[in-house]
Amino acid sequence: MKTMRTRAAVALEAGKPLTVMDVNLELPKAGEVLVEIKATGVCHTDEYTRSGADSEGVFPSILGHEGAGIVLQVGEGVTTLKPGDHVIPLYTPECRECYACTSGKTNLCTAIRGTQGKGLMPDGTSRFSMLDGTPIFHYMGCSTFANHTVMPEIALAKVREDAPFESICYIGCGVTTGIGAVINTAGVEIGSTAAVFGLGGIGLNVIQGLRMAGADIIIGVDLNENKREMAEKFGMTHFVNPKDLKAGQTVVEAIIEITKTEKDEFGGVDYSFDATGNVQVMRDALECSHRGWGVSVIIGVAPAGAEISTRPFQLVTGRVWKGTAFGGAKGRTDVPKFVDWYMDKKIEIDSMITHTMPLDDINDAFDLMHKGESIRAVVTF
Amino acid sequence: MKTMRTRAAVALEAGKPLTVMDVNLELPKAGEVLVEIKATGVCHTDEYTRSGADSEGVFPSILGHEGAGIVLQVGEGVTTLKPGDHVIPLYTPECRECYACTSGKTNLCTAIRGTQGKGLMPDGTSRFSMLDGTPIFHYMGCSTFANHTVMPEIALAKVREDAPFESICYIGCGVTTGIGAVINTAGVEIGSTAAVFGLGGIGLNVIQGLRMAGADIIIGVDLNENKREMAEKFGMTHFVNPKDLKAGQTVVEAIIEITKTEKDEFGGVDYSFDATGNVQVMRDALECSHRGWGVSVIIGVAPAGAEISTRPFQLVTGRVWKGTAFGGAKGRTDVPKFVDWYMDKKIEIDSMITHTMPLDDINDAFDLMHKGESIRAVVTF
Repeated sequence: MKTMRTRAAVALEAGKPLTVMDVNLELPKAGEVLVEIKATGVCHTDEYTRSGADSEGVFPSILGHEGAGIVLQVGEGVTTLKPGDHVIPLYTPECRECYACTSGKTNLCTAIRGTQGKGLMPDGTSRFSMLDGTPIFHYMGCSTFANHTVMPEIALAKVREDAPFESICYIGCGVTTGIGAVINTAGVEIGSTAAVFGLGGIGLNVIQGLRMAGADIIIGVDLNENKREMAEKFGMTHFVNPKDLKAGQTVVEAIIEITKTEKDEFGGVDYSFDATGNVQVMRDALECSHRGWGVSVIIGVAPAGAEISTRPFQLVTGRVWKGTAFGGAKGRTDVPKFVDWYMDKKIEIDSMITHTMPLDDINDAFDLMHKGESIRAVVTF
Repeated sequence: MKTMRTRAAVALEAGKPLTVMDVNLELPKAGEVLVEIKATGVCHTDEYTRSGADSEGVFPSILGHEGAGIVLQVGEGVTTLKPGDHVIPLYTPECRECYACTSGKTNLCTAIRGTQGKGLMPDGTSRFSMLDGTPIFHYMGCSTFANHTVMPEIALAKVREDAPFESICYIGCGVTTGIGAVINTAGVEIGSTAAVFGLGGIGLNVIQGLRMAGADIIIGVDLNENKREMAEKFGMTHFVNPKDLKAGQTVVEAIIEITKTEKDEFGGVDYSFDATGNVQVMRDALECSHRGWGVSVIIGVAPAGAEISTRPFQLVTGRVWKGTAFGGAKGRTDVPKFVDWYMDKKIEIDSMITHTMPLDDINDAFDLMHKGESIRAVVTF
């Protein structure tokens, strides 16, 4: 067994800041790949687990799931990647062989789901450990808050080599989730109307997805007036601040007012998206969608145990309630296309990366997130 | 103003048996049609309103919405119907001109929705009255519990003249709702797996719709063991009685057990249908659908104020929650096709009509429903 050392930000226990330290990393076994991480975004989902809110969180672990890097070494039997390849880690792998992948109906590959959920590699063990030998758990099958990580071949998307790591790492989660929710999950058509709840890193990407898809009306909803300007740059046409409604008016009513026309007495948007994780907001998102055909997509991760609810009449009168994980994208197939779109300037990423920092300062990224000062902070190695 | 007399079962007040009496009926105004009702089914929705459970119910009214009859007279400007035409009344009209109809995305025509919901004709008045002149409300735009009724032209489907009224009246609601939920709303494909909750008049039609669509596994769920035999005749392949589960097993687990295979570790049905109106059952129906692509359709009408709920994770992992009204069918376009299917023996109706009776005995139909002794009772004139 060969082992290397690398530097990582370790979540030693729930609710504590990460600790940057040297750790041991076992080199890749059969079907696995050693990746040098060059950049990683810090996402709300990392914070959800770090804080202890995620009831399935395990510690100590190396968080991070939104990275980009270079293949350094491949294990036995790896055929689709070689040293030097540029890759984006996939927390939703694409084995192309399991019942889910071959169904053609979902991106939720089940090949390694059991072990990944437990913070382990497919063989049921971890590659990371403390210098004293204590095992450290993987996270979402990625653990990009480390300068080096080991991942299954099926969980790496090979991407072009001229794309900058510090930008395309964001395609590993936020960009693909937001744009994918629009184009894969909702299937928005030209001329549609839409509402996006939550104008953070995911919401902005939903907005640019809607602009790409040709939506006519793109309503953004956020409690923070400061989000307005950036959202407008990405394509938002109307802003609704729930703190600033007419007396007695609900958010749903405000959205209906914007979308009602002489021909359409009901109003409501063709598509709505929740990017907040708040279950009451998810309900508003459903109920502001159009009678007869409105589709509402849940993207946000809700607190453990929280439930969505509505009157069944909302569905019986034609609304559809869906959700999306990783924007419905099949990672190895779709992520390279997203990278192309970025390089072709079809999608915008750089202006959303508001902060960059070295690994030693990674806790600052969480602070910025809490203060609402960052859209995305990226750690570069 | 010309008025005729007809005989009708009148709901004088909530919670009371219907009273069969002579009433006045104004002859059709512009755009309206006088129909002689030849047969009408008695549906749970009639009972829902009769009982007082429907918070929007108004009294006195003439209930009934599942009928078939003959056009006797047409008002000014009526062009698509003439005396002698055979028709099925539509509680969901099809004007082909409103924003909803022209969208091509829904069957929920809005042309006369406002007045229909208030128990009135499109001009805001009623055609029915007591012999002393007290107005009687219409019901669902149909009022088929009368020997004669007046309806808008856009709410009548013209059907072939060789079809027996006492069978095809059921196409006015239950048959179309159940089969339509499968073929229009869910879009079931050949080889699918499905579960149907509630094996009453709607559930049996969902089952025959699934058989028509080529489903491989059709699981029926009902608390009443007596429903099993008839459901099997219509195509049910597996029966789950929640009273009769293995110790500690839930209905959802029982359905997953039936559908799990060596290739598919998750199990769950591709499509599920609630035909009970119970919000807890609606949740089970969603949660027994397959991770990644399961579609669950709510058909049943829930008690006023009742809400559905689930963890958003159920949707984020790929399940879709939908509903259907009148099976997503566009009445004037689709109902004549259903009548053809019945005449061509593609669909079965007669064995579901377990009781027929004259109007004078209509309260017996409600008693049979409460005792669970009928699938459908039909009143013939």
